[in-house]
Amino acid sequence: MSILQMPWSKAKPLLDTLRSEVKSSGLWSPQLAKEYGGLGLSNGDFGKVSEILGMSPIGHYVFNCQAPDAGNMEILLEFGSEAQKATYLQPLSEGKIRSCFSMTEPENAGSNPVLMNTTAIKEGNEYVINGHKWFTSSADGADFAIVMVITDRTNISPYHRSSQIIVPLNTAGVHIVRNISVMGDAGDGYFSHSEIKYENCRVPVSNLLGNEGDGFTIAQSRLGPGRIHHCMRWIGICERAFDMMCRYAVSRQLSPGKSLAEKQTIQNWIAECRAEINAARLLVLDAAGKMDINGQEKAKVEISIIKFYVANVLQHVLDKAIQTHGALGITDDTLLSWWYRHERGARIYDGPDEVHKSRVAREILKSYTT
Amino acid sequence: MSILQMPWSKAKPLLDTLRSEVKSSGLWSPQLAKEYGGLGLSNGDFGKVSEILGMSPIGHYVFNCQAPDAGNMEILLEFGSEAQKATYLQPLSEGKIRSCFSMTEPENAGSNPVLMNTTAIKEGNEYVINGHKWFTSSADGADFAIVMVITDRTNISPYHRSSQIIVPLNTAGVHIVRNISVMGDAGDGYFSHSEIKYENCRVPVSNLLGNEGDGFTIAQSRLGPGRIHHCMRWIGICERAFDMMCRYAVSRQLSPGKSLAEKQTIQNWIAECRAEINAARLLVLDAAGKMDINGQEKAKVEISIIKFYVANVLQHVLDKAIQTHGALGITDDTLLSWWYRHERGARIYDGPDEVHKSRVAREILKSYTT
Amino acid sequence: MSILQMPWSKAKPLLDTLRSEVKSSGLWSPQLAKEYGGLGLSNGDFGKVSEILGMSPIGHYVFNCQAPDAGNMEILLEFGSEAQKATYLQPLSEGKIRSCFSMTEPENAGSNPVLMNTTAIKEGNEYVINGHKWFTSSADGADFAIVMVITDRTNISPYHRSSQIIVPLNTAGVHIVRNISVMGDAGDGYFSHSEIKYENCRVPVSNLLGNEGDGFTIAQSRLGPGRIHHCMRWIGICERAFDMMCRYAVSRQLSPGKSLAEKQTIQNWIAECRAEINAARLLVLDAAGKMDINGQEKAKVEISIIKFYVANVLQHVLDKAIQTHGALGITDDTLLSWWYRHERGARIYDGPDEVHKSRVAREILKSYTT
Amino acid sequence: MSILQMPWSKAKPLLDTLRSEVKSSGLWSPQLAKEYGGLGLSNGDFGKVSEILGMSPIGHYVFNCQAPDAGNMEILLEFGSEAQKATYLQPLSEGKIRSCFSMTEPENAGSNPVLMNTTAIKEGNEYVINGHKWFTSSADGADFAIVMVITDRTNISPYHRSSQIIVPLNTAGVHIVRNISVMGDAGDGYFSHSEIKYENCRVPVSNLLGNEGDGFTIAQSRLGPGRIHHCMRWIGICERAFDMMCRYAVSRQLSPGKSLAEKQTIQNWIAECRAEINAARLLVLDAAGKMDINGQEKAKVEISIIKFYVANVLQHVLDKAIQTHGALGITDDTLLSWWYRHERGARIYDGPDEVHKSRVAREILKSYTT
Repeated sequence: MSILQMPWSKAKPLLDTLRSEVKSSGLWSPQLAKEYGGLGLSNGDFGKVSEILGMSPIGHYVFNCQAPDAGNMEILLEFGSEAQKATYLQPLSEGKIRSCFSMTEPENAGSNPVLMNTTAIKEGNEYVINGHKWFTSSADGADFAIVMVITDRTNISPYHRSSQIIVPLNTAGVHIVRNISVMGDAGDGYFSHSEIKYENCRVPVSNLLGNEGDGFTIAQSRLGPGRIHHCMRWIGICERAFDMMCRYAVSRQLSPGKSLAEKQTIQNWIAECRAEINAARLLVLDAAGKMDINGQEKAKVEISIIKFYVANVLQHVLDKAIQTHGALGITDDTLLSWWYRHERGARIYDGPDEVHKSRVAREILKSYTT
Repeated sequence: MSILQMPWSKAKPLLDTLRSEVKSSGLWSPQLAKEYGGLGLSNGDFGKVSEILGMSPIGHYVFNCQAPDAGNMEILLEFGSEAQKATYLQPLSEGKIRSCFSMTEPENAGSNPVLMNTTAIKEGNEYVINGHKWFTSSADGADFAIVMVITDRTNISPYHRSSQIIVPLNTAGVHIVRNISVMGDAGDGYFSHSEIKYENCRVPVSNLLGNEGDGFTIAQSRLGPGRIHHCMRWIGICERAFDMMCRYAVSRQLSPGKSLAEKQTIQNWIAECRAEINAARLLVLDAAGKMDINGQEKAKVEISIIKFYVANVLQHVLDKAIQTHGALGITDDTLLSWWYRHERGARIYDGPDEVHKSRVAREILKSYTT
Repeated sequence: MSILQMPWSKAKPLLDTLRSEVKSSGLWSPQLAKEYGGLGLSNGDFGKVSEILGMSPIGHYVFNCQAPDAGNMEILLEFGSEAQKATYLQPLSEGKIRSCFSMTEPENAGSNPVLMNTTAIKEGNEYVINGHKWFTSSADGADFAIVMVITDRTNISPYHRSSQIIVPLNTAGVHIVRNISVMGDAGDGYFSHSEIKYENCRVPVSNLLGNEGDGFTIAQSRLGPGRIHHCMRWIGICERAFDMMCRYAVSRQLSPGKSLAEKQTIQNWIAECRAEINAARLLVLDAAGKMDINGQEKAKVEISIIKFYVANVLQHVLDKAIQTHGALGITDDTLLSWWYRHERGARIYDGPDEVHKSRVAREILKSYTT
Repeated sequence: MSILQMPWSKAKPLLDTLRSEVKSSGLWSPQLAKEYGGLGLSNGDFGKVSEILGMSPIGHYVFNCQAPDAGNMEILLEFGSEAQKATYLQPLSEGKIRSCFSMTEPENAGSNPVLMNTTAIKEGNEYVINGHKWFTSSADGADFAIVMVITDRTNISPYHRSSQIIVPLNTAGVHIVRNISVMGDAGDGYFSHSEIKYENCRVPVSNLLGNEGDGFTIAQSRLGPGRIHHCMRWIGICERAFDMMCRYAVSRQLSPGKSLAEKQTIQNWIAECRAEINAARLLVLDAAGKMDINGQEKAKVEISIIKFYVANVLQHVLDKAIQTHGALGITDDTLLSWWYRHERGARIYDGPDEVHKSRVAREILKSYTT
């Protein structure tokens, strides 16, 4: 039975063993600053690692660079107080606790930062949080959430209305409604996406990340590295699916002495997928390099481009790998169907293709209108 | 909880109630000859019904025109002996038993009729069947299978080497290895695809369908009507997904007073999907009409065309409907993800797109080479 | 030398001979009412004829059902006064004169009826027309134009600001600036698209077609039949290109005994093109049938759908036919390159794809918002 | 009147003036070895220059790095005798003469090196050449051709049957049948593609390039750099078309205050084209870099990939730029229609897409079959 089909209670001990091995090998937390026990890799270098890890659905988790913990470590490092670092970043970096990021709301389009209903009202030394979130990935069994909330709805700038606040998940009023069933799997533990209601949750004001009104800025800051991370992970999936496709094509006999690999249609797919995967990798590494040198802001066109370009390459490669495998491709006997289901979201989360395309165009057109 | 997520033991009683209502309404078995209690509809007319029923994943089952039983009834009616009709067709037509069709083998490409390992050796009054099948849909709990076997491997014509034999599933030696997990669901009962080993299964020679060597011919005879059935069912799915897409687009607010429906990209999808669904339906009804008038053989180009054309329209429409729904689209809160998973096989079963395209081309090119 | 490469002065006599033959055969003006010497075919029936004629670039001209004359005859018949019919429709129907339709303006997007600069000011018994038009097809050598003008710019309804006026091209102030070179060919005579300036052109008020303010309505009325006409003409082109592709594929030897037709990629193209052309024809005939029965207004979704769907099928089929022919495909030794160049406009004129898609979507979404 | 529409006799003096300016500027022949007056750029560096020059249809010619002269200079430098260099390379490098490359034959698929009918028979000190070529680009008015001929048809290796021989075009028996009309333009002078018959043409054996049997090898050696050259030239075209598209989108008013650039469909095209052009450039520069470091042979997958990938990006970008321009896009008032017509061949010459895809796949699959 694959680890992916086990309940979390059974999967976790197996994964913990692997995590111990990684720690011993000195490759733990490759994306993280050295002071927190990581390798301190640049976006470009971690990107290359992320591709390799992406070839297995458990790769990132085992190396402690999995979403959403990796992003949370990143913003705790950049925006966290010393106390927050001690309480949350340190054990996260050691893999002792898990976390989640609670932003998306079912009633609101995630691509618009103005549309958010969850609020945090300051009362004395506490924030009182109320709201309804979903797709809070890995919340089930996590220790804390970083929650995106409105703290100043009337601020003239929509980009300064929100804040991010750390909420331990054992806080009274945190109600995990369900693990949302996604493409046939509700999952549990790390492999889940929760719907959560926050009902009069009280946390100390010291749980605020950065300053009030920084919510949008902090969210943006995690997007760039997160996209390199995901895009290279997707390329890892593409490479493995591509390898499976080639392997199956040469082994599947259509008639005595004639394999599937001799079919020109299959050859077309192999050539087209190879071209697209190569293009995808070059685009992502180019974006990562520009981000490392010039910062996220100046690389925003490149970052939006890879988001939609690579997500579509991923879907295309998976589709052709499945089609090559025929009936086997739709079974759960290979990983293809798992990716086909669980990566359909790639074209949706962190902004759907359509939003990124409009952003890219508007950014490019700026220089034509002035 | 959706009926689709229930174990069969819970789903069946609910479905039985619905089936009783259908029987009372006089709409039972619309595709079947009147002498067996059906409505005796033509391919064209049943196609239109199939579209409506296709809008629900349980529609065909509830009206007793579900694959693979419908196809089995069809070939029993055409090729079955009087005894076979009494024993198998009659109770099938009444919905009292279930059946399956056991053709595809894991080791062999399904698109090549020469490649088949399962054999039936005549010994006295019995056939002894040995072989390994998979994707025997709905075998779990079924009463009998029609099994495709090699009866004459050395026949000079590959098209006369095989036969179809009725095998009650309680026959000794029938071993259901597993319900194959497909796109995350192993399913059970009617909603399943079994891997089966036939090990020295003995059935009386009177269980042979038609004559020895007719296997391929009988298999072909069920393909044409089966494709109309499936293609119109897919169009039903398309229509419902299209409706969901439009409904969601107008209801989802992106900003105050501005809905998703005002986005030109969404409008493009709606127009393109509408065009494709209309085209798909016209193509299928045209093929059904030609089949009704001239027979399957003369409509084979049209029948192959709809197989790949409509399957791709289906995939395209589902993809756009999901993308329109955003995060909701990948959850199991709507039917979209169920179809996305369970209809990915549409481009594979009954011959993958690639095989049908080559067939169409070779058929067309015949008139250019003589 | 192909008739398409001849100057009009040389081509016309050859075409006239063919036109005489058609007249003798009794097939002249198939689209036109019988009282004007035509066959009085319905949209559906003329569509079928249009497909056949479309197989040759001169087919429609030779049968006197060519754009823009056919459309002009249609609106003269429907909206023209008796005098207008006698002066313009009668000789057009006999093929004795030629006409053009002068609507599009270089400075304004053709898809917006509000945006038009050409004006007609009534002075006494005359209209004084000023404006700048282009893509007035076949104006070179034509006898008259029907010109779309603004007669009432301040009308509260943008749809009632314009009128259509007949302008003999020998009227003082009509200045044909040039025949616009389109895709390498400026052309002349019937095969041309002129840029025209109207400078203080005076025509009698009796040259007004219908009533003042009817311009948009009249323009709309010619669109529906015009789209059936063009779409079926495109399907004729598709069929001929498809035939050329098949013919070439079987004749081109890649190596001894192995033709291009055995390549699976070519087979894919043949199957896909066949599917698309069949779908296109069924869609157009369905739209024509609905138009014949229920009128244009009720068939507007269907009419917009065929406009973009068939134009894209046309482009796709031509592209594959060219690619199949290799180097020969880009030469002018076959008709493929002529169509590739002169039918690129199909996705633009009479409203670009994008405009039709939005229209279709908005029309469909109406029923979801009420 | 654009230089592209002038007869060569008028265009040449204008181009000569520009060529003189380039010489004075020290940028002449950027691709050529310094000993022949060039800049000696690597494939990677010349690639970047080629992009810039590609933005104008006359860029490469004006800098003396135009096909087919650049390729001819390259093989003369690598395989030419000292006498051949003095007689042909030296004046070519100075831009004093022009040349052509005569390989493709109308009766044979260009993608198969075995299929060639033109022969050179050695008689004493001469080769006697007979054969029929076409698409000998720029032959009209050129001084010499390098002709691909069969010198040893029975050689066991098809790759050693052919040779390349220099044939001055004033040799008796060289008959330029016509300049082939391609996409509406027969052209002349440099801008032409000739059909040529070689009828008992006699040239001294010293005109042989390299050794007998080297024809295929020499042809291969020019392909790699040629593809970098063309691909980067295409990217230059893409960039200019992209710029035109953006520029037009912001300037075209659809209604007061609302430009075409605000349409989401246009934004999608801009984002998608930007992504594809970026990907294309990265792929080509990556291939050029690998070729510069490891040689052509080891970069053959990359070189075949860019051939089909970039040609398709080019076609896609041109299509969208034309569609954005509406009616203007199909006129010859912009360069878009010229490229649309004259670069359709990009997917065909130097091996059609389909051949390159199969090559890429077979190369990749090698490692799976051993």
